[in-house]
Amino acid sequence: MAKVHNYSAGPCILPEEVLKQASEAVINFNNLNLSLLEISHRSKDFIEVMSNAQELVKELLNVPDGYSILFLQGGASLGFYISAINGMKSDGTGAYIDTGTWSSKAIKEAKKLGNVNVIASSKDKNFSYIPTNFEIPSDANYIHYTSNNTIFGTQFKTFPKSAIPVICDMSSDIFSKEINVSDYDLIYAGAQKNMGPAGTTLYIVKNDFLGKTGRDIPSMLDLQIHIDKESMFNTPPVYPIYVSMLNLQWLKKNGGVKWIEGVNNQKSELLYAEIDRNPLFKGIVATEDRSNMNATFVLKDESQTEAFDAAWKAANISGIKGHRSAGGYRASMYNALPLESVQALVDVMQNFEKTNG
Amino acid sequence: MAKVHNYSAGPCILPEEVLKQASEAVINFNNLNLSLLEISHRSKDFIEVMSNAQELVKELLNVPDGYSILFLQGGASLGFYISAINGMKSDGTGAYIDTGTWSSKAIKEAKKLGNVNVIASSKDKNFSYIPTNFEIPSDANYIHYTSNNTIFGTQFKTFPKSAIPVICDMSSDIFSKEINVSDYDLIYAGAQKNMGPAGTTLYIVKNDFLGKTGRDIPSMLDLQIHIDKESMFNTPPVYPIYVSMLNLQWLKKNGGVKWIEGVNNQKSELLYAEIDRNPLFKGIVATEDRSNMNATFVLKDESQTEAFDAAWKAANISGIKGHRSAGGYRASMYNALPLESVQALVDVMQNFEKTNG
Repeated sequence: MAKVHNYSAGPCILPEEVLKQASEAVINFNNLNLSLLEISHRSKDFIEVMSNAQELVKELLNVPDGYSILFLQGGASLGFYISAINGMKSDGTGAYIDTGTWSSKAIKEAKKLGNVNVIASSKDKNFSYIPTNFEIPSDANYIHYTSNNTIFGTQFKTFPKSAIPVICDMSSDIFSKEINVSDYDLIYAGAQKNMGPAGTTLYIVKNDFLGKTGRDIPSMLDLQIHIDKESMFNTPPVYPIYVSMLNLQWLKKNGGVKWIEGVNNQKSELLYAEIDRNPLFKGIVATEDRSNMNATFVLKDESQTEAFDAAWKAANISGIKGHRSAGGYRASMYNALPLESVQALVDVMQNFEKTNG
Repeated sequence: MAKVHNYSAGPCILPEEVLKQASEAVINFNNLNLSLLEISHRSKDFIEVMSNAQELVKELLNVPDGYSILFLQGGASLGFYISAINGMKSDGTGAYIDTGTWSSKAIKEAKKLGNVNVIASSKDKNFSYIPTNFEIPSDANYIHYTSNNTIFGTQFKTFPKSAIPVICDMSSDIFSKEINVSDYDLIYAGAQKNMGPAGTTLYIVKNDFLGKTGRDIPSMLDLQIHIDKESMFNTPPVYPIYVSMLNLQWLKKNGGVKWIEGVNNQKSELLYAEIDRNPLFKGIVATEDRSNMNATFVLKDESQTEAFDAAWKAANISGIKGHRSAGGYRASMYNALPLESVQALVDVMQNFEKTNG
């Protein structure tokens, strides 16, 4: 069958060799003559998977000493609450930057726990830009932001130095570019973009950040408990963690985060250049805030929608319909999407200009 | 390679044909030429998986109208807290029966929310029996119990009719025997015994039970929100749900819960008969409360441990070491463990008697 150019916004494309190994492990894992799905999570073989996955995160992101790596459950959606309950003092305040659907949800969950100070928002222009004109309050317990906004297609390129702890939801751009982990007290990220399949959530937490809220935290939401139990407080999501490990091995083998950042830049430059050049299309967010992961754009003439949809579908492109909150198109270019898939989309756009321009 | 007799206490053995289909879907799912791991959870193909899995639960357990089926995350460990926060009024009380490690953990989490009334416990005899002499208080918001205790090997064979809502953690015996769902207001169960691999948790909830606590529940812990979003409030653990669906299809095809209950009875009768007959071994829990899922036993003469361990390992038996809280041996006989694997263990015990008796 012809190759599908998989632009799914997440869960999303994974490398072919990762999928091959992942498939084999379901039948016979580590030559145990048992499936990975049917062995104990306390077995030496799975403990090794967990430990390898944690080490790969440390290595790929240059995580300094004093941080812990956890593979938990619940996605960023539970992360909104977990980050707040572990960071916000019982009489304290969390500061938030609102850059779209996911930040708004984080704010909603934090409000269930205490005071929330939304210090900046781009809601006034339907989240089409990243706010820059804000001051981080020194009296909040932390500042929270969403590094990449999948729905509208904006991304923080830098973040100001902060005197208070920084919490970041990096679900959609972790492992896509180099970061300085020591700038953060807590990073959390659902796996299903650049890390692996749906079903596990990565937490990178500075150990010193914890234990200061004065709250009695439910055990499964208490990051300190998970650290004490080395991410095995309860049965972890074995398979999603294993596939994440394979995927991080793939990233390391190919050159790590620095390498993929270069590839991702190439991909997004290629597509944004075409969006800007092609007279039939336009981007919908501020140029300087464009996401390298999710490129959003629209047809200038909406009546061409049907014809354009037929054109990309005919080219075996899948998953570029925009989110209903943003409309138009969204091309998600996560790590495993090859440059040739971006070229295929650009070719479709160019041919479409020739026939419909 | 020789077949492994997989007695793992969970994650545990799954049927070979389920593993085969599960392995294939990682490469090419539904002939989409895409892996199940890399498609959107909002795609028609995955929505169908979710809906099939929910229908299979309804059908296999004869779930009456007025109940909802959810596939969430966090295992029973998060279920301890979710069940309490959805059931205990802000000034109310939860009644609990303490039959071992898992009930004790449920009690601990509920105490973070309010009043807990432990109405019965078998802690006095290291959880080696199921308490019967208790009265369910009419003024509690619910009564909570653990249907099967994996560590000590006890199981409720019946439960008294209750005037207040009943919450049950059925992680380790759901789908192993027929139950009357209408006796319960909330059932929750980690998948990794009889339902599927680790990574998803089943909730069967009576719709009327919800909305009465007066609490502002975090969204991811709010069962009503998950019901409103048909178990797709956020990205679900796609692969564990898919494998659970395959496993429930396997159960249905072979004759359903009534059929497997018969098989499970045969298996446990065979093993318990040998434990009782063989002069070298004895059970460690009250005979009438023995679990059909996890048979616990010890060598009468501990000095024979090394020799017996060598004997079952030589027979390709895996995973029968007892939990450290209970000692001795634990043979977990979940649905997918074939009768021949139990016969293999019984043969080892009989040969061991001949050579060491």
